[in-house]
Order: sequence, then C-alpha cells, then structure tokens
Amino acid sequence: MTNYEQFLSHAAGLMKESAIRQMGSVLSQSKDMISFAPGYPAEDQFPWIDFTDICRELLTGTDGSVLQYGPTRGFRPLRETTIDLMKARGITSTLENVLITTGSQQGLDLVGRVLIDPGDVVLMELPSYTGAISAFRNVGAAMVGVRQHEDGIDLDHLDDTYLQLVKQGRRVKMLYVVPNFQNPTGLLMGLSKRPAIVDWAERRDVLIVEDDPYRDLYFPDVSSEAETRPIAADDRYGRVIYLSSFSKTLAPAFRVAWISAPPAIAAKLEVAKQAGDLCTGGFDQRVVAEACRRGLLERHIPELRAHYQQKRDTMVRAIGQHMADQVTWTLPRGGFFLWVALSHQLRSRDVMPLAQARGVIYVDGSAFFVDGTGTEFMRLSFSAPSPSRIEEGVRRLAAAVTAAAAISPAPPVATP
Amino acid sequence: MTNYEQFLSHAAGLMKESAIRQMGSVLSQSKDMISFAPGYPAEDQFPWIDFTDICRELLTGTDGSVLQYGPTRGFRPLRETTIDLMKARGITSTLENVLITTGSQQGLDLVGRVLIDPGDVVLMELPSYTGAISAFRNVGAAMVGVRQHEDGIDLDHLDDTYLQLVKQGRRVKMLYVVPNFQNPTGLLMGLSKRPAIVDWAERRDVLIVEDDPYRDLYFPDVSSEAETRPIAADDRYGRVIYLSSFSKTLAPAFRVAWISAPPAIAAKLEVAKQAGDLCTGGFDQRVVAEACRRGLLERHIPELRAHYQQKRDTMVRAIGQHMADQVTWTLPRGGFFLWVALSHQLRSRDVMPLAQARGVIYVDGSAFFVDGTGTEFMRLSFSAPSPSRIEEGVRRLAAAVTAAAAISPAPPVATP
Repeated sequence: MTNYEQFLSHAAGLMKESAIRQMGSVLSQSKDMISFAPGYPAEDQFPWIDFTDICRELLTGTDGSVLQYGPTRGFRPLRETTIDLMKARGITSTLENVLITTGSQQGLDLVGRVLIDPGDVVLMELPSYTGAISAFRNVGAAMVGVRQHEDGIDLDHLDDTYLQLVKQGRRVKMLYVVPNFQNPTGLLMGLSKRPAIVDWAERRDVLIVEDDPYRDLYFPDVSSEAETRPIAADDRYGRVIYLSSFSKTLAPAFRVAWISAPPAIAAKLEVAKQAGDLCTGGFDQRVVAEACRRGLLERHIPELRAHYQQKRDTMVRAIGQHMADQVTWTLPRGGFFLWVALSHQLRSRDVMPLAQARGVIYVDGSAFFVDGTGTEFMRLSFSAPSPSRIEEGVRRLAAAVTAAAAISPAPPVATP
Repeated sequence: MTNYEQFLSHAAGLMKESAIRQMGSVLSQSKDMISFAPGYPAEDQFPWIDFTDICRELLTGTDGSVLQYGPTRGFRPLRETTIDLMKARGITSTLENVLITTGSQQGLDLVGRVLIDPGDVVLMELPSYTGAISAFRNVGAAMVGVRQHEDGIDLDHLDDTYLQLVKQGRRVKMLYVVPNFQNPTGLLMGLSKRPAIVDWAERRDVLIVEDDPYRDLYFPDVSSEAETRPIAADDRYGRVIYLSSFSKTLAPAFRVAWISAPPAIAAKLEVAKQAGDLCTGGFDQRVVAEACRRGLLERHIPELRAHYQQKRDTMVRAIGQHMADQVTWTLPRGGFFLWVALSHQLRSRDVMPLAQARGVIYVDGSAFFVDGTGTEFMRLSFSAPSPSRIEEGVRRLAAAVTAAAAISPAPPVATP
C-alpha cells in the first residue's frame, strides 16, 4: 500500500475543508432540506431568456475566438467594461490595473500567492469571509482579527493591533475588508470610516484588499448607492486592491469576476494566473461582456434589490415571530445574509445536528472568526429559498434551537 | 510612492512569464501574423451548431442549477462521463478519484500545491510542457531533466538520475510525463515503456503525473488508438495521477478538464480547489456533459484526426520544400506540434525577431527544457492556421532562418 501522507506538502497540511462548501454537500443529499447555508443567488432571478439570446448570437461561428483560448488578463472588451463599472463607483482604473479572474475566489487566491510569505500577517475583520480565510491560510498567512461595530471595523483596535504586532517584530502586509453588506454579518461600513482606512494604510505602509461582491444589492428601504462608495474610490496612494464580481448580479456558474490592483502587483497576479488556469473561461467572459453591453445590469439589478429585500423581510419577520426569545439579530441593509446570535450560551455547532435532522441547514458562525471565537453565531442566507421556504426553514430552526436548549441547559453564570 | 516590491512574496519572485502566453500577446497585436506559437485548436472545427443547440436546451430555466454555484468536485454526471472515458482508455476509476478542473492547467497547479514543498524534486522529460514547468516552479519545486528518445523517456537515465539525487539527500516526489504526442516534441512513448515506468515508480516510491490531453488526436496514417494506452491503465499500485481535458476535442474556452488521483490525494486536491476557485464553471460543465451524452465526441473526433493529420502533412511538406537544409524535424504521429531543430548552431531566440519581422511566430524551444539547454529548437504548432497559411508561414520562417544564418555565421568548431 502506498503511503500518500508522506507525499503531501506542508501547505496541504494547512488546508481545511470549507465550512460553507461542506454544507453544500449536505444540501445535495436531500431534496426537502431547506438551505440557509451557501449564499446562493435566487435561480428564478437569473435572466434566462437574455442568456439564451446572447449564447445563440455568440455561437454562430462568425467569431471563432469565442470558443478559443484567450489572454490571461481577460477578454479586453470585458476588462474595459469593468473599468466603466468601477468608474461609476468612483474608482479610477486602467487596463494596466485590471485582470479578469475565475470568480473572486481566484482573485483572493492569487493575492495570497503573490503577496504572502508564511508568517506574514493579514488583518481580518472579526468575523470575515471564509473563502478569504482559506485562501490566505493556504499560503501560510498569520491572520489576526480586528473588532467590528455596527458601522464596520474598529479603527482604534485596528491601529492598536497593528502596533502591537509590529512591536512583536511581525510583518503586517495587508488588511482584508468587505465594506458593503459583509459576508457573514451583512454590515455596511460607515462612509467616514472608508477614507480613514486608506489614510491609515498609507501611514502604516500596509495594503488593503477590498472585496466588494454585494455592493449593487443594497436594499432601498434602508440604504442607498451613495453609502456603498468603495474604499478604493478614495485611494490616492495606490494602497487598495479591489475585487468585484458578476456572480451575484448575473450568475455564478459563469465564474467571472475581476480584480484591480496597482500595475506592479497586477503584473504579478497575471503571471500567477498563467500557471493557475491559463485564462478564465472565454465563453463565459463573452456572455458577461455581451450582457453588460446590452444594458442587462441596469435593467436587472433593481429587480434583484427588490427581490432580496423582500426575502430579508420574510426572514426577519419569521425570526421575530418564532425565535425572538432565543436569538438576537441585525437588520441587513443589503446582500444575502442575516447574522444571528444564539442566546442562553447555546453554541451554533450544538444546534447544527438538530437543525439538520429537522430539515434546515446554515453555516456555523465560528467558521468566520480567525480568533476561534463566535461559537454563538449562525449565518443565515435568505437569498436562495422562496419566501414560503424561508418561513418554514425558520420554523424548523426555532424547533431545533428549542431542542438544543432542552438538551444542554445554560451553564451557571460564573461568579466573579 | 508605494514600494510594491517589498510586498511581494518569495513565490512571486520565482514566477516567470510563460513563453507561450507571451507569444499569444504578440499574436493579438497583428492581424497578418501567422502563428505557429500557442497550440490553439482550429476554430473552424469547433462544433458550433451542436453547442448552439445544447445552450438553448440548457437555458430554458427548468433546471435552475445550470447557472448556480456547483460542487467543488464537479458536476456529477460529468464526473461519471470522465470515468467512462477513462474506462475506454483502460483506466479504472471511481467518483472518489475524480475531480473536474478549470482546464488541465489548474490540475497541474493543484498537484504542485498539494504535493510539492520547496526543494522537492520533480523529474521532467527533456523537453517538457511549459505549463507544468510553471506550475511546479511556482511552488518551489526543483525540476531535474531526464533524456528522451524517439520512443520517449530514457528509463536508464531516469533511474540513474533518481539514484544520484537520492545519494545527494534529495527528496524525489514525482515524475511528470506526457506519453501521447508530447507537448512540445510530438513524441509517442513506446508501449513497452509505459508499464515499466509504473513498476519503476513503485520500486522507487515515487508518484507519476501523467498528462494526457492529446491522446484522442492520433493520426491514423502512422498511429492507432492501441498505441496511446495510458500509463495509468497499468497502474496496479496507485502511483499515477492522471490528467486529461476536453479543450482539444471540444473547445478550450469552456476550461473543462479532469484529474484522477488516489482518493487520499484527490481529497486534498478538492480542498485546495475550494480555496482556488470554489468550482469550475457550471455552465461550461453542463455544455460538455451534454455534448458527451449526445455522442458528439464519437462523431467529432475522427474528423479532427483527419483535419490535423492533413495540416501536419502540409507543414512537413512545406518544411521539406523550403527549409530542408536549415533544420531537422520529427514526424508527429498525433497532436498539434512539430519539433524542429535548427542546423548550423543557430539559436532559436536569434531567429525569433527576424521571424516576427517577417510575420510568423513560434515558441523558442529552450522554454521547454528545465536544464537550460535546447536553444536550437523551435516548437511549431500546425493546429490553428489554415493549410495555405501554414505554407506561407513556413516560407516566412525559412526566410528568417536564412537571414539569421547570414547575420550570425556558425561559430568555429571548438578544438578539443
């Protein structure tokens, strides 16, 4: 018998299975399971008819390059489109900055590979997106958490953490932030904090990785486009690496996202991508470029905002009705996620099997904390299920929490 | 000014731009340039009508998951299809072995990340595929070359090299081979060598990475399917990691390939891919799966063999006519490439600018040698241009070689 363990790299030893992807596997095993787990867009909202028309037009064969290998940087008209999209968000960029990536996940992976040596520190919001945590962990990053408030990252704690690390002789290379409707909390970073973060990065000689997949999906009842101004828009120094995606606004199956970085870094990302997958899917890029050219985003995104806002309302109402005495939660002003804290010292992972048994899944919030805390949190995604399934799912979840509380009663309060 | 150099990782310092991808950029700059550089499939051979029909059927919206995120391992019916394809090639595999990848390039990248620590030795054929060289270099592999003959790798040199490395205290983890119509040489490894390599790997406790993108494209005039039997077909030990792809038989823009590995390694490849791009494009996978279900490969591949065989003939004839006194070459029995050696001690890189100036490009053969040799070789890809363009391209190349010979006359023969 071959002993495969001895062949694995040190990096392979660091790799951990994604908590979100694990839930995806659970989901695929049962038809009746209601999923609040992966942040999947609503399938009935995909613009099926537009895509059918676009594919037919692209596949006439008059342009052979539609199905050919393409440049590693991406299909040029699509790169130009992303420059226009960023311009509308207040960000100045050129072709030298932009690279199309195979989903934003690849962008994060490339950033990790090009910038991080084992032991380098990446500052992460507490909590933060698991996909970024995985990508940075795989290259040996030391991730250190920074507290958040209702309006996003705590700037004092950010600088204190930085100074303490430097005092310990650590190299702090970057800060990873999701300012708009953060995954997992749904938080929206306050407008005044954004330029302050860029100034901080310049002062401390640190790079910022700004991940911005949800910004278009603000909810008009409590938010506005002006409140989603990217950090990169106020970057006068070249400190920000900006990532965004078409996965949430068009469809994730196309795996088309982009990254905009200072030219010296973008050039390295390109070389890393050459060896990573040569190029992002050429047909996918054409479909997305043509969808943009036809104005599909402008027509489609307002419908998506209304759609997800309604689902948020459904979930918040159901939680208020069935779980108000068991949990606390924040009202998301955009995005896909409701961030829920269990009361009575219940742990998310203890509720999990009981929830699964009742036909509902979510993601254990502790997966999003790089400091090992957050055991009381659940990330509930309201984006994919129908309103009636959301209601039913919350009912099942309430039953699971009740059952968990009955099994493991709250431990006695510690006396000082 | 931000100093970006100080932010780059050690790995980023190792990364080099791909010689093939560089040529792709040159190509995109001029319409009249004849390209023998990247190994692009012929665009007029893509089954445009079938794809149009398949896309229309997939995009009715009745199956919402067509445009959704999918499992990291890949779309299950497609994984089952690859198992059937491998069975027809003599390879036994199960769902536990198989992972769909974003092109074979991603498979190579994942293999490198999961198996290679900096300094680990990977044995490479001399010459070998640049994409593999890049992927392994990016994780710090020490690549050591092994000689090839007309029938593939030199088994004695392979073992001698291994023993010498072990004596030096080096860790030899794997051997990378392309047995069928190798990129760049077009060589076909002899049938008797294949099981011998597996036995060698078992004896020496080494893994084999077998990259097999071209096997379906054998040329019936001088080759047969029986001669393409994969090394993995005779792997009784679990030593072989096998990669293959739909890029050459369907279309590269879909970025759909697969890897079959021992389950313990496949599980790690999956976790690495989670953080790499979450999943391969879901729509692309559906298109490929549906194309296979409809029997498109069986109908289409025989036409491709005839097509590329004819182009090989055109190129070989043109070279014989215009360059016979300037170069030597091997007759490819399949695949996309003609491997040409310049006579008179001319160097490929000296011919390159003269060829570009005359409107023809190729890849400098030295890019395929991990030992810094091979400066006299040119890789000419006959797959993409039309027969008349192949003829014209060879004419231009002959003129460039003549001009190069006139500029830099052969240096005097060294006296012993």
